[in-house]
Amino acid sequence: MTNPLRLGIAGLGTVGIGVVKIVQTHADLLATRAGRPIEIVAISARSRSKDRGVDLTGYAWEDDPVTLAKRDDIDVFIEVMGGDSGPAKASTEAAIASGKDVVSANKALLALHGQALAQAAEDAGRVIRFEAAVAGGIPVVKSLTEGLAANVITRVIGVMNGSCNYILTRMEDAGLPYQDVFDEANALGYLEADPELDVGGIDAAHKLALLSSIAFGTRVDFPAVELEGIGSVSIEDIRQAADMGYKIKLLGVAQMTGRGLEQRMSPCLVPETSPLGQLQGGTNMVVLEGDAVGQIVLRGAGAGEGPTASAVMADVIDIARGTRLSTFGQPASTLRKVRAAQASVAAPYYVRMELVDKPGALSKVAAILADAGVSIDRMRQYGHDDTAAPVLIVTHKTTRTALDAAIEGFARTDVVSGPPVAIRIEAE
Amino acid sequence: MTNPLRLGIAGLGTVGIGVVKIVQTHADLLATRAGRPIEIVAISARSRSKDRGVDLTGYAWEDDPVTLAKRDDIDVFIEVMGGDSGPAKASTEAAIASGKDVVSANKALLALHGQALAQAAEDAGRVIRFEAAVAGGIPVVKSLTEGLAANVITRVIGVMNGSCNYILTRMEDAGLPYQDVFDEANALGYLEADPELDVGGIDAAHKLALLSSIAFGTRVDFPAVELEGIGSVSIEDIRQAADMGYKIKLLGVAQMTGRGLEQRMSPCLVPETSPLGQLQGGTNMVVLEGDAVGQIVLRGAGAGEGPTASAVMADVIDIARGTRLSTFGQPASTLRKVRAAQASVAAPYYVRMELVDKPGALSKVAAILADAGVSIDRMRQYGHDDTAAPVLIVTHKTTRTALDAAIEGFARTDVVSGPPVAIRIEAE
Repeated sequence: MTNPLRLGIAGLGTVGIGVVKIVQTHADLLATRAGRPIEIVAISARSRSKDRGVDLTGYAWEDDPVTLAKRDDIDVFIEVMGGDSGPAKASTEAAIASGKDVVSANKALLALHGQALAQAAEDAGRVIRFEAAVAGGIPVVKSLTEGLAANVITRVIGVMNGSCNYILTRMEDAGLPYQDVFDEANALGYLEADPELDVGGIDAAHKLALLSSIAFGTRVDFPAVELEGIGSVSIEDIRQAADMGYKIKLLGVAQMTGRGLEQRMSPCLVPETSPLGQLQGGTNMVVLEGDAVGQIVLRGAGAGEGPTASAVMADVIDIARGTRLSTFGQPASTLRKVRAAQASVAAPYYVRMELVDKPGALSKVAAILADAGVSIDRMRQYGHDDTAAPVLIVTHKTTRTALDAAIEGFARTDVVSGPPVAIRIEAE
Repeated sequence: MTNPLRLGIAGLGTVGIGVVKIVQTHADLLATRAGRPIEIVAISARSRSKDRGVDLTGYAWEDDPVTLAKRDDIDVFIEVMGGDSGPAKASTEAAIASGKDVVSANKALLALHGQALAQAAEDAGRVIRFEAAVAGGIPVVKSLTEGLAANVITRVIGVMNGSCNYILTRMEDAGLPYQDVFDEANALGYLEADPELDVGGIDAAHKLALLSSIAFGTRVDFPAVELEGIGSVSIEDIRQAADMGYKIKLLGVAQMTGRGLEQRMSPCLVPETSPLGQLQGGTNMVVLEGDAVGQIVLRGAGAGEGPTASAVMADVIDIARGTRLSTFGQPASTLRKVRAAQASVAAPYYVRMELVDKPGALSKVAAILADAGVSIDRMRQYGHDDTAAPVLIVTHKTTRTALDAAIEGFARTDVVSGPPVAIRIEAE
């Protein structure tokens, strides 16, 4: 195979331009490693005239990515536009229908339409690869699909949105409330055009749903991800958690339970000394657990031009080398539909509430917890004003159902002021 | 491809039995993921009668691994015997010559004969894969060969021998001298039959040489690895390093410099807060740095039945799926011969020496360092007995040559008692 592998790139934002730069500057390296030259043939983006800082004159231009996807002179369609429908979906479908392999960085599209796209690709004898869609430059899709393929995967856990991790670590370091840091991050351009994709946990949940499918051999089920963003994380909880030896992270967890597949993306406490607890700023970390391999931890940049383009090009090189894999690691038709199990696995919880300053208040709270079957690991009462005394509780392992019953019980008393905060503690 | 992939396993030690267990217990999972059944057809080991705790009655037995390698009814020869020559080499060569693909966990064989074996395999149209030879279950060969294939690799750094890391962390935790912990580890069976392979850094250097070849597109050059074991690491240095915020690790470093390829496996100081500094016990960690992807950190179990068998089987599944890669990521004929550059990259150093208790001793030492062009970042003098005062120095970045000149200078004075200890500080 010395014929060149010909690329069509749809989308010339950060990632697309990163791909162009690698192809232009590393031509010899890519050819040596891939065993054949890798060439860009055609490109497409919204604006043809925009100066993107790289020479694009050698490539054919298409206004419409669907037209690009159908060109006879490309072998691989690279979709780095984004969007969970519209041109991204239409062009990906067109590429497959016209016999192209697809390399995609589009987590939203795959999280919502992955099953149909994977099936279409396999029916057409084409592949869809998406390393760049999850955790930027970290080869996590490859590690899970290939490196750990001999394992029953027991759990996938990780920090998969750098912007959220940046906001949470910045809140802690600077002692600033959420809204201030959010505004700062937004002004710096760290957030998506629709910031809710980041801070609402949606982007990270897309990634988790994709990893779940590979890990457990199940159909991608993004709507089943139990989702909670970081908007409700207060500086008070970050401080109190730190004081008890924890960090708050937007954590994705996927595990197969007796009741079905549990997928969660939500703020959790992790021990500050754990690898996840020590993760600073925009870095991502994914922990893969398998029955034979034990625990594998992968860390790296979760976004950015270079890292994401590196992942796109890794998929391209795989295709150039002749590697052909099913989209989710096994034929789409063999992926199982499974029940969603919502947080059925017991865990310790961090609970913070304001106790009204009355005699017997604490014993009432303790009694309600005991009645709900929630036992207390640690309790701490700290400096209080005239009317309310903040109380922190770390429970022993309990179910969310039991904890919710206790919280309902608090509301029926007159000793707890306002709704308590309850955050799951996830052990590594 | 629904015809089974047929395996012959040479070696039924920990790793071989781990492979048997995965094939026996995960048959359906492997078939689903690989797209075809994976079967063991024949096995070979030193003793046929030994009880290994698994049922081997369904497999053909060969006393001679070379005969096993030549059998017509196997597709993949799995070499998990070990040894850098003898039966391991003969059977691997026989497998290739008779048209088999090879999956090997044998770092010594590949570090010494990798170029010839890779060339032979490629000439015969066969592949040799060796994920299990480096860092156990961590998919580091895959990450480097495939996941980061679009990058100019700038550095590979890591802790690649779990036994050494166990000894060093145990020395620190228990406050025990090297020999005590060595004896303990040996009694517990943590060390190779020839412990020098572990504590002399040889095993880890084999792994580093293999990663270097992939990273830099160079011929495996194990003899060029600058090698120093952990036998000379004293509890005193571990304590003093800790006091200054460092841990001592047996660290492998490979980087391409202006003067050639630098490969080192030696005790180094790393910041205690860094991922490498926090690595406890038998765990391995490899840090890969690329021009596009930045820094990728991989952590996991570096040895043991499950993790190593997981890596062997990942290679087997790749072959079952039809993935065909050059042994070192590019054709063997394109791997370059390069000059070896010994520690030419400047670094800060930790220096410990005993100063004779004389007026002006410290100023003499400082003057010698200044004359050699070595500048001091931090100096600390601590509790001393009647005749000698221990002094710790952390230098600014300097070359080993300049530092050696200073150390020679010390020897020509009458103020330094005995040879100083000098350990490189490696930043992540």
